[in-house]
Amino acid sequence: MSPRGRRPGRSDTRERILAAARRVFGEVGYERATIRRIAGAAGVDPALVHHYFGPKADLYAAAISLPVSPREVAKAIADPGLEGIGERVTRLFFGIWERPEARRPLLAMLRGALEGEDTGVEAFRQFLEEELLGRVAPLLDSPDRYLRVSLAAAHLVGVAVARYVVRLGPIASADLEELVELVAPRVGSYFDQTLGSLNPDRSMT
Amino acid sequence: MSPRGRRPGRSDTRERILAAARRVFGEVGYERATIRRIAGAAGVDPALVHHYFGPKADLYAAAISLPVSPREVAKAIADPGLEGIGERVTRLFFGIWERPEARRPLLAMLRGALEGEDTGVEAFRQFLEEELLGRVAPLLDSPDRYLRVSLAAAHLVGVAVARYVVRLGPIASADLEELVELVAPRVGSYFDQTLGSLNPDRSMT
Repeated sequence: MSPRGRRPGRSDTRERILAAARRVFGEVGYERATIRRIAGAAGVDPALVHHYFGPKADLYAAAISLPVSPREVAKAIADPGLEGIGERVTRLFFGIWERPEARRPLLAMLRGALEGEDTGVEAFRQFLEEELLGRVAPLLDSPDRYLRVSLAAAHLVGVAVARYVVRLGPIASADLEELVELVAPRVGSYFDQTLGSLNPDRSMT
Repeated sequence: MSPRGRRPGRSDTRERILAAARRVFGEVGYERATIRRIAGAAGVDPALVHHYFGPKADLYAAAISLPVSPREVAKAIADPGLEGIGERVTRLFFGIWERPEARRPLLAMLRGALEGEDTGVEAFRQFLEEELLGRVAPLLDSPDRYLRVSLAAAHLVGVAVARYVVRLGPIASADLEELVELVAPRVGSYFDQTLGSLNPDRSMT
């Protein structure tokens, strides 16, 4: 069970921190949970929490078994700027969801939301708003930038639900490239502020 | 309980038919379930099933408490043709979801799918493919028409999940008109076969 000869104390501590994190995030939400508070609940030093898990976003990701680092995702989306962002976001998204072990915790979160597990969902919502929307939306300067970025994300989640959950024929059986070819431009168009409407008659107004 | 003075036998029979329908749809799926088979399971004449519920699509809709008639939805989408289809579909979709009592059975279906209730989901998938995609996709003639119509639907479902389930800030608090203004063009663009890609560089190829 411990092939690298890890001292058992280390993984015990990690698990204790993760359990405390889940409890605190669930109780007070993402925004109000602090590393200090979680460390207190786990009975360890805050520096140790940071040493094991990095910043709060990564601790949260570990606590809910997210398969990716939210900081790295936000960086990969935002750092190269708006050029090609539709395709970049779409490929990144499906690159994660195509791995069955990666999609499990995402589906569990969605299931919790549907069952009205309000504490977990509230924390997840705050996390998404702060760590993903809050880092990507500043690429745009229109007043509806948070809505645009959210709608791009919602589009992708809808396709994931159709492909991996409902397994709707045409989407479930589509080649990934074919999917990207059709979805990426629509996702990208949310980042094009000249396109309030794609209908030529209306975009002139 | 029976303010219009209905004879009790009538609602008993309706309920018996609905229970039989749920059982048969769950067991053999949507495609293979016939009115005759459901009537047999309920111990009534097939003509009576048709008299109470109309065609199979409407019986199915009643069995899973769908808040709308799938025939009417498909008609409202397809009959006026491609002109303005993005806005028409988007308004129709949110017109249903904005009513809390209408969204309940839709959320229950999504929850079932996430929990891997495979029989119910399989029937629902077949139902969607046959009664919705099968009636709307013929508006297009490109080989990817089923995929395009499915992606338009998936986009809308994703926004519904964000607005009504996860309640993601910007989407949950958006004015319905603001939402339609941004979403309808993207939904509509799936019906525009000249737009394989919305990226100008690529749509030329």
